[in-house]
Amino acid sequence: MKDIQSQLDSRRINIKKVGVKTVSYPITVRDKAQKQQQTVATANMYVNLPHKFKGTHMSRFVEILNEFHGEIDIKSFHFILEKMKVRLEAEASHLEIEFPYFLKKVRNGDSGNLGHYKCSMHGSLEKEHELTLSVEVPISLPIAEKTPHRLPRSMGRWGKADLSIRFHHFFWIEDIILLIEETVEKEINELSLKERKVLSVESLARRMGASLEQIEAIKSYTVTVHNFGDEYSTFATLESC
Amino acid sequence: MKDIQSQLDSRRINIKKVGVKTVSYPITVRDKAQKQQQTVATANMYVNLPHKFKGTHMSRFVEILNEFHGEIDIKSFHFILEKMKVRLEAEASHLEIEFPYFLKKVRNGDSGNLGHYKCSMHGSLEKEHELTLSVEVPISLPIAEKTPHRLPRSMGRWGKADLSIRFHHFFWIEDIILLIEETVEKEINELSLKERKVLSVESLARRMGASLEQIEAIKSYTVTVHNFGDEYSTFATLESC
Amino acid sequence: MKDIQSQLDSRRINIKKVGVKTVSYPITVRDKAQKQQQTVATANMYVNLPHKFKGTHMSRFVEILNEFHGEIDIKSFHFILEKMKVRLEAEASHLEIEFPYFLKKVRNGDSGNLGHYKCSMHGSLEKEHELTLSVEVPISLPIAEKTPHRLPRSMGRWGKADLSIRFHHFFWIEDIILLIEETVEKEINELSLKERKVLSVESLARRMGASLEQIEAIKSYTVTVHNFGDEYSTFATLESC
Amino acid sequence: MKDIQSQLDSRRINIKKVGVKTVSYPITVRDKAQKQQQTVATANMYVNLPHKFKGTHMSRFVEILNEFHGEIDIKSFHFILEKMKVRLEAEASHLEIEFPYFLKKVRNGDSGNLGHYKCSMHGSLEKEHELTLSVEVPISLPIAEKTPHRLPRSMGRWGKADLSIRFHHFFWIEDIILLIEETVEKEINELSLKERKVLSVESLARRMGASLEQIEAIKSYTVTVHNFGDEYSTFATLESC
Repeated sequence: MKDIQSQLDSRRINIKKVGVKTVSYPITVRDKAQKQQQTVATANMYVNLPHKFKGTHMSRFVEILNEFHGEIDIKSFHFILEKMKVRLEAEASHLEIEFPYFLKKVRNGDSGNLGHYKCSMHGSLEKEHELTLSVEVPISLPIAEKTPHRLPRSMGRWGKADLSIRFHHFFWIEDIILLIEETVEKEINELSLKERKVLSVESLARRMGASLEQIEAIKSYTVTVHNFGDEYSTFATLESC
Repeated sequence: MKDIQSQLDSRRINIKKVGVKTVSYPITVRDKAQKQQQTVATANMYVNLPHKFKGTHMSRFVEILNEFHGEIDIKSFHFILEKMKVRLEAEASHLEIEFPYFLKKVRNGDSGNLGHYKCSMHGSLEKEHELTLSVEVPISLPIAEKTPHRLPRSMGRWGKADLSIRFHHFFWIEDIILLIEETVEKEINELSLKERKVLSVESLARRMGASLEQIEAIKSYTVTVHNFGDEYSTFATLESC
Repeated sequence: MKDIQSQLDSRRINIKKVGVKTVSYPITVRDKAQKQQQTVATANMYVNLPHKFKGTHMSRFVEILNEFHGEIDIKSFHFILEKMKVRLEAEASHLEIEFPYFLKKVRNGDSGNLGHYKCSMHGSLEKEHELTLSVEVPISLPIAEKTPHRLPRSMGRWGKADLSIRFHHFFWIEDIILLIEETVEKEINELSLKERKVLSVESLARRMGASLEQIEAIKSYTVTVHNFGDEYSTFATLESC
Repeated sequence: MKDIQSQLDSRRINIKKVGVKTVSYPITVRDKAQKQQQTVATANMYVNLPHKFKGTHMSRFVEILNEFHGEIDIKSFHFILEKMKVRLEAEASHLEIEFPYFLKKVRNGDSGNLGHYKCSMHGSLEKEHELTLSVEVPISLPIAEKTPHRLPRSMGRWGKADLSIRFHHFFWIEDIILLIEETVEKEINELSLKERKVLSVESLARRMGASLEQIEAIKSYTVTVHNFGDEYSTFATLESC
């Protein structure tokens, strides 16, 4: 009796999202210095299904991805989302990709080493296209004194900044990373002139917010600054109004 | 010039959340069969700060946690949230803990082995207390045939169900887990009578939704069923209306 | 008194290994079908230092890596190890890289999807060059029945095979992967004719050993077969004599 | 023809190790201050099988673990290994457990916070019992200046020390941790008197070696000091002769 009831109920229950997760994929992304760079992404693709719909074809998600041969930029992001919406007869489509982004370091005496930054892009298409770029920027303290016959070792990992940004128009990932790294440097330089030399997650988050507010291309943003400790981390999160 | 501007701006920018992350802590939680069980949690604690506020005392978060000596139930959850709100003079307080929950397996010929389930509790207090319980329940296929001199090996990991639930009143984690495991069993038994023997994430998510709808104690829920594959996973998510 | 003693002692204590870990790097590896593929590696580089030596120049490791621009094959592996040994005046040098390797699936009705396999190469140079290739090959059970209007879903993750192989001469990663996937298929096909249908880690490991024994290019190998369960995994390891 | 050959071969191929991995288990371990502490472990259990043996009973491993109800000390470690050897008719038995160990911090103005240390114990029994204890001790730099109205924040994670130790007789985990933390403190205090203020992985590893050499209870040890950087880590490993 209860079983039949449960089965009847289940027909009226709507699936909110359906799709594929953790598709591993080699991709090509735009790169300011070298035009493009090759990296490896993990992708999630899913759709919202309308009420009447009864199932979906999971293999179609990856078929669509295959058609783009891993060429990922804002244009192809839009095309993929549109194909998903049409072929899966969905109300909304979503594409999330995460990848390491490599950037030759030119500041602070780094002799051309490659820095890598965890990036992700989350796009969705319901009536309009929406795209959020996220970047994780490591934060480290500078070494006060450099020794002659030995290159400076690390002061360790002070923390990181997690950024999520929506743009009005195209903006280079490199320029976001540089802006954040410069903001950290300014904060540290100012601290060295003060009596209280503690770098705080709140004041660093506020200064990053102030830097981001000045970029016209940015529609909205969230920034979280983390300070790693032995036992736990502290953090402060700030959102654009 | 630009620097002064950025500094002025930063004073007006409000911190949304501030707190501590990944505090590792031994805790005691309620257990239906044994009254209580000891496990190990990772906790995040944070507050929303009012506009005028200029900083926070990070060590106070962990001090409050220490005062409760790791005794975690719904009551202490509320007390911790209240202490956080008062001592940090905040508009809202948040506590998230994640821990493995152990449960003696009694079904399917498991001879008293301990199953472990990743659980988390997310509580917040602004004007009212809100508490969400999340549980991850592994899903595996039954082995058709058991051999005499060798205990059955695993068919592997078919997938998992991720549940997030808000309750009207207290409900045992054990009972949620059993409900979900019984629902999976029913679905598989029914499938074995059908011609199309494919266990699908959509139909399993719908059936779990139907099971959860019948529990009066449940205010709202989200359930996501994942099916693991070699190359990627497929999933379906369903939310209570 | 104790302090001075401890300091004296420390001068006589020899460093066994010194180097860099978890260098993230985009690399190009050889690919049977497409000549080469681009992927992303994590590298460890270290040397054994002679007794008299008192320190090392950590930045030199990454400088050497930079000189090869991420072109990784057996030849460049040898060159990197030689440069490390010379420039760091070491008795022995070691290079370990780990990367996802992508391979178009052509078997079992996979419609050209990309499989990805966790690979690693560990090379060392003391008097002779030694190179070990490791590959992780996922194992899944076939779906008995395919439905017409819906592509087959996964039976889940049964387990995986971890292989570590030393070669007499060059051998394609692709051919190792295919050999292992064919061996799994054979074992499953034979099982379907037997009464006892339990796929066991021991018998699968033995069969893989038998397959690897027949490849002349292989000098020595270790294979571990894992079967994933809800509560734990079981495994069997086999080594060439 | 080839198939029959491969099957024949496979009968002569010996399994080196067979067992269970990643069994999650609540355990009780000895604690210097509180007599015992409860934590959560991940266990691996495996045996070496003699040539004639043809299979094993995987469930017996966990049965043996269940019989000890998670009470883990050196004595029970030996008993478990003996039971494994006998019941699985094996030549050698192995037990590896990994768990977070909690320790109230009393140094450096830490107001009674719990530090947690990743520990593991690897035991084996062939003719004799052997037991290795491993501990991971975080290393952080001290904050030069403490501010009055704000507790000190972290300088970040400088690195960690990984220790693996064999003992002649019982020794407290707490005393190993304290020894390592004191050694780091001494090294930093000495550095502050020197011109070259760079904390190096080699010199820190050497000093730890010197400290460990003075403990009679220690039979042999390996210590690796890591320094975390933004792009990669550096490390030095030292082994007792």
